[in-house]
Amino acid sequence: MATAATLDAVVRAAGPQLGPMMERVEARLAALASGHGPVLARHGGATIAAGGKRLRPLLVFLAAGEEAATAADRLVRAAAAVELIHSASLVHDDVLDRAPLRRGQPTVVAVAGRTVATATGDLLFSRAFAEVAGGGEIADVRALSAASSALAAGELMQRADAWDVGVPLERYVERCELKTGSLFEAACRLGALAVGGPADELAAFGRRIGLAFQLLDDVLDVSGPASRTGKARGTDLLDGTVTLPLIVARERDPQLAAVDLQALDGEAAAEAICDRIAATGALVEAKRRALDVVAEAKALLPRLSPRQRATLELVADGVVERYA
Amino acid sequence: MATAATLDAVVRAAGPQLGPMMERVEARLAALASGHGPVLARHGGATIAAGGKRLRPLLVFLAAGEEAATAADRLVRAAAAVELIHSASLVHDDVLDRAPLRRGQPTVVAVAGRTVATATGDLLFSRAFAEVAGGGEIADVRALSAASSALAAGELMQRADAWDVGVPLERYVERCELKTGSLFEAACRLGALAVGGPADELAAFGRRIGLAFQLLDDVLDVSGPASRTGKARGTDLLDGTVTLPLIVARERDPQLAAVDLQALDGEAAAEAICDRIAATGALVEAKRRALDVVAEAKALLPRLSPRQRATLELVADGVVERYA
Repeated sequence: MATAATLDAVVRAAGPQLGPMMERVEARLAALASGHGPVLARHGGATIAAGGKRLRPLLVFLAAGEEAATAADRLVRAAAAVELIHSASLVHDDVLDRAPLRRGQPTVVAVAGRTVATATGDLLFSRAFAEVAGGGEIADVRALSAASSALAAGELMQRADAWDVGVPLERYVERCELKTGSLFEAACRLGALAVGGPADELAAFGRRIGLAFQLLDDVLDVSGPASRTGKARGTDLLDGTVTLPLIVARERDPQLAAVDLQALDGEAAAEAICDRIAATGALVEAKRRALDVVAEAKALLPRLSPRQRATLELVADGVVERYA
Repeated sequence: MATAATLDAVVRAAGPQLGPMMERVEARLAALASGHGPVLARHGGATIAAGGKRLRPLLVFLAAGEEAATAADRLVRAAAAVELIHSASLVHDDVLDRAPLRRGQPTVVAVAGRTVATATGDLLFSRAFAEVAGGGEIADVRALSAASSALAAGELMQRADAWDVGVPLERYVERCELKTGSLFEAACRLGALAVGGPADELAAFGRRIGLAFQLLDDVLDVSGPASRTGKARGTDLLDGTVTLPLIVARERDPQLAAVDLQALDGEAAAEAICDRIAATGALVEAKRRALDVVAEAKALLPRLSPRQRATLELVADGVVERYA
């Protein structure tokens, strides 16, 4: 995730209209969490509150640009909806990973069990669609359902490819685009649609920065340090998830190409593989490729006002800034 | 579920147009299952195929009535969507219950594990929304999102009330309406909307027969026999789910009012409670109340053509027929 300082800079650069609209999104998310029974209020509300820096809602507004205030209601709904889909996917991911903490807070599954967590995720998904349906724009529903389908398809692809150290690079990239790129894409498309902006071009930009975001996330899983990421290095490896660092490193170190991930017996073994991957220089190479994708994303930006272009470029750079 | 023979009779009574439209729904479901990667094709497809008698899609067409053929495309989408939501909820339920079989077929979670099953359910949910969004009717999206929200809210309510033998009757009824009534309601509303029919009245009818369906399902869990229901008697009790038979019986047998469900140690203990519930006459009373709800549902039907009324009444009776 881009740093909070960068995102604050983006909000300032975007002009005085953005802050109040982002606050409306927060109010909307809080109202949705509290309006569907005490269980959602407690668990869904906590998840939404712990949901991070609202990068996806921010993208909705930035993709709308300087005309955003003319379509504020539609944009606020869209921004809330993409954050709800994101929150729903986090809740379900935590169920599957049996994760005790997310961003330092206890997860829904840890506090309330699998049943409540699964149903909470389903309810957040459903409210996302209710949110855009309430705005009456069928194109917005389409953009959202395409993204939520892609998220689930990406998860299925990840499971299908689990433990396969030889997974082709192209399949890995496709998985990242499904799992992460698609919701960034939808955020940008929703923003552009609301103001009649260049939706396909901005959607393509969003998809690329979502991909870059995931590539760098996968580098962080190998590089750590744990003090910064909040989790042990190599958790993806223990989960059977083969990502770009290993894909690059396997070409350089034959022993990595032959590693049996299912035989890894715990965090120390996973960290040893991480060290071995790093020793090939694959982390530097993977980071370089992610930076290339950010550059591609910027090159995809259509003709925009200087201010809108500047804010979108700031966000794109923010994806990389985790490495500053 | 109504018997296959009744539903066949309904299809015949509804006229020659219904069969081909139901076949289009099957083709649509099969295409959706096969069009989103091999994992969904394998697991989602199996779930959809094992999904039973298509009572909810049938209700969509019956609520549309004799004008159905004039809005066939919209109705086929709506019917596929409600069945997808139903299938998605079954997949997630099976994850939570760790169920090995559903209708004699291995469940997704049993074959492929929790991760694939959770993501498969999420994908089926998402495709349901894509399906109605593809038709371009925002009212249909609203009806569907209201139902899917209610399903999840009902599941959360069931968990919130788990193990509480004193749960108020009103809360139990509300839970059944959320968990089951809401999707029957949506099916009827979607059918009526497509032909400009009396949507609110038919939705109210759907909600009532969904409630009756759930009441009778809850009676079956206590009455068995297992050879007919495919599961041991008292599985709801072991799960902490307090339903109408126990709610009625606790007024008649003080020991039942004080039973500690969390102390039940296995199927034999649960069956003993089932016997005790049956001994109070509560099953007869619960069944009577379900029949009352069916009668209320029929009384709610607005002015309709004789044929449309007859088919809807046949379905309402079909809900009860499991007891013939």
